[in-house]
Amino acid sequence: MLGNLSPDVQRKVVEQMEVRPKLIAMDTMNFWMDIALEELHRTLTLVDLLIVNDEEARQLTGEYALKTAAKRIMALGPKMVIIKKGEHGALLFHEDQVFYAPALPLEEVFDPTGAGDTFAGGLMGYLSSQDELTFDHMKKAVIAGSALASFCVEKFGTQRLKELTKEALDARIKEFYTISQFDLI
Amino acid sequence: MLGNLSPDVQRKVVEQMEVRPKLIAMDTMNFWMDIALEELHRTLTLVDLLIVNDEEARQLTGEYALKTAAKRIMALGPKMVIIKKGEHGALLFHEDQVFYAPALPLEEVFDPTGAGDTFAGGLMGYLSSQDELTFDHMKKAVIAGSALASFCVEKFGTQRLKELTKEALDARIKEFYTISQFDLI
Repeated sequence: MLGNLSPDVQRKVVEQMEVRPKLIAMDTMNFWMDIALEELHRTLTLVDLLIVNDEEARQLTGEYALKTAAKRIMALGPKMVIIKKGEHGALLFHEDQVFYAPALPLEEVFDPTGAGDTFAGGLMGYLSSQDELTFDHMKKAVIAGSALASFCVEKFGTQRLKELTKEALDARIKEFYTISQFDLI
Repeated sequence: MLGNLSPDVQRKVVEQMEVRPKLIAMDTMNFWMDIALEELHRTLTLVDLLIVNDEEARQLTGEYALKTAAKRIMALGPKMVIIKKGEHGALLFHEDQVFYAPALPLEEVFDPTGAGDTFAGGLMGYLSSQDELTFDHMKKAVIAGSALASFCVEKFGTQRLKELTKEALDARIKEFYTISQFDLI
């Protein structure tokens, strides 16, 4: 998981690895698109998954429609793209497959700082507990990341995450399931 | 289904009915909140379901968080609230239950005119085909409305709806299912 650093530093990390991991994910932001777009494009050719928010996906591709933006990003290198939409959930794209992860409608967001990193942490943590990288596992990983991030925003800094139990996380994941599942008509 | 008219006209329609229907739904908009808020509040006490978009829910209640806004609206009369979020899907609230209906990530929105009315039409059409008004049926009705509205925006006016087949609608509903369903971790 390449955190949100200079694309050149991200690339050098990948190049220093003797064995390529099963999955290389990366985060980035508008700042790097503004000052290091060429380096960013170069690094994108080396990774499997890009995690960005909706504004970043639009800036990177010049496309407003997120489905089109995701296609453009996948043409730049990553096989998969996750576009985070904050209170509107997150979209996962892989080839022609799409998954729309809901966001829990919260009554209060105390402090959104760190929600994106918490999402990535929950996502990668879930994936590293799995043997395979199927689309089903990717979907669950997005839910795990979303659930973890939903705790992050409840208190300042890492406070809520430090006191979080596995039971509370599992219950939150179940909430995501309950609010989004329905039977085919 | 009380379309988006003056709240006084909506109320008079309800009062003229000799037999109360199983469900009275109503649409409204910011304009009526600006010029006829008192009448709107009076009409809200007579209906079962309010269908509004996110901005309207916020204006009506003064609450930014949609979950809180929905609670406030349910305290004004309606047992159920649907909050439409455009490209971000729709939320259905009833007591403590919440359903997050996804939106299909579209590559192009040709003309959004009529999408809200098409949503309401699909929703009410589905419900009137059912014997009961369970929360499960309400969820499916929101999906049916969302699916129908997703066709409306593909062409100008009613053009796409006029040429729509049942098969195409069923396939679209299945797409909503595919993009949003996952297994519990």
